[in-house]
Amino acid sequence: MVLSAAKTRFARDGYEKTTLRAIAEEARVDPSMLLYLFGSKEELFRESLRLIIDPEVLVAALTGTGDDEPDIGTRMVRTYLGVWEAPESSASMRTMLASATSNPDAHAAFRGFMQNYVLTAVSGVLGGDEQARLRAMLAASSLVGTAMLRYLICVPPLSDLPTEDVVRLVAPTVTRYLTADADELGLPL
Amino acid sequence: MVLSAAKTRFARDGYEKTTLRAIAEEARVDPSMLLYLFGSKEELFRESLRLIIDPEVLVAALTGTGDDEPDIGTRMVRTYLGVWEAPESSASMRTMLASATSNPDAHAAFRGFMQNYVLTAVSGVLGGDEQARLRAMLAASSLVGTAMLRYLICVPPLSDLPTEDVVRLVAPTVTRYLTADADELGLPL
Repeated sequence: MVLSAAKTRFARDGYEKTTLRAIAEEARVDPSMLLYLFGSKEELFRESLRLIIDPEVLVAALTGTGDDEPDIGTRMVRTYLGVWEAPESSASMRTMLASATSNPDAHAAFRGFMQNYVLTAVSGVLGGDEQARLRAMLAASSLVGTAMLRYLICVPPLSDLPTEDVVRLVAPTVTRYLTADADELGLPL
Repeated sequence: MVLSAAKTRFARDGYEKTTLRAIAEEARVDPSMLLYLFGSKEELFRESLRLIIDPEVLVAALTGTGDDEPDIGTRMVRTYLGVWEAPESSASMRTMLASATSNPDAHAAFRGFMQNYVLTAVSGVLGGDEQARLRAMLAASSLVGTAMLRYLICVPPLSDLPTEDVVRLVAPTVTRYLTADADELGLPL
């Protein structure tokens, strides 16, 4: 599978050192086929991000089920930290965030992934307008910042806390960004 | 000045591509003197971070003056976004954050900078114990995440908002982390 080969390579070598040729080899397809299918390394990176953070999983966490934790922030933070801590995705998450912050082409790919998938999916649940996108972004800023300091730079005491302590500390922030009254939150009109 | 030469080089070329030799040349000192003074590239990076984000400036924002905005979160977020937006520091901030997230040695330097300077200075104002360090970290997670999405990856709508809109949106989160009752916040004992 081309995307899973791309995900594997990007996760192991980072964005800059990964070549289309290496992904093609890993997926046993012709490099020209890869270019035909995806257009560029940047687009391939963007699509492979979806294999690691599936926007539908975030949407499921947002909407919740009857059996779930009733608080939306608790569901979101727990789901997000779960992806960072699961053995099959933790290395990918680290390399992907490092790549997305260090390389300008990877910035563009990450931006596209956020805008076209994450923010569209999450804000869709919240009503789909510009205010909903901003709410989703504010929640994302809290989650991304937590992951940076806890999993990437590993700064104690945040990196040493049990997961559920982090969920309890950060969830109210996410709940507020997603659900507080627009006036109270100070959303621009 | 050695540190300002280091800051300039790291900001222009990033952590990985900057050599001790290049910094020594820029500062017109012998590379062996540089090693003698700082021990390693990693330590030099950590020290040069202090030229960009001065922990004392953050402490001043925390304590405030009589003429200031009374809200602690508003002072902190405004000061931090100011460093990101000032012409003399914005390029440095971008390169430094990108370096700090992408290179394992730079992780260690950034972690040392956070632990030894930022968290110690900020938590000192808040009482100096382990709970104060965790409060400072939670505030940092909100600030770092906002900067990542607004200034590094540049994702709209967060990247398009006027600065004061972002201050108004994020300040209550920082205020809560720094000042809310420990029980309400859910701090571990």
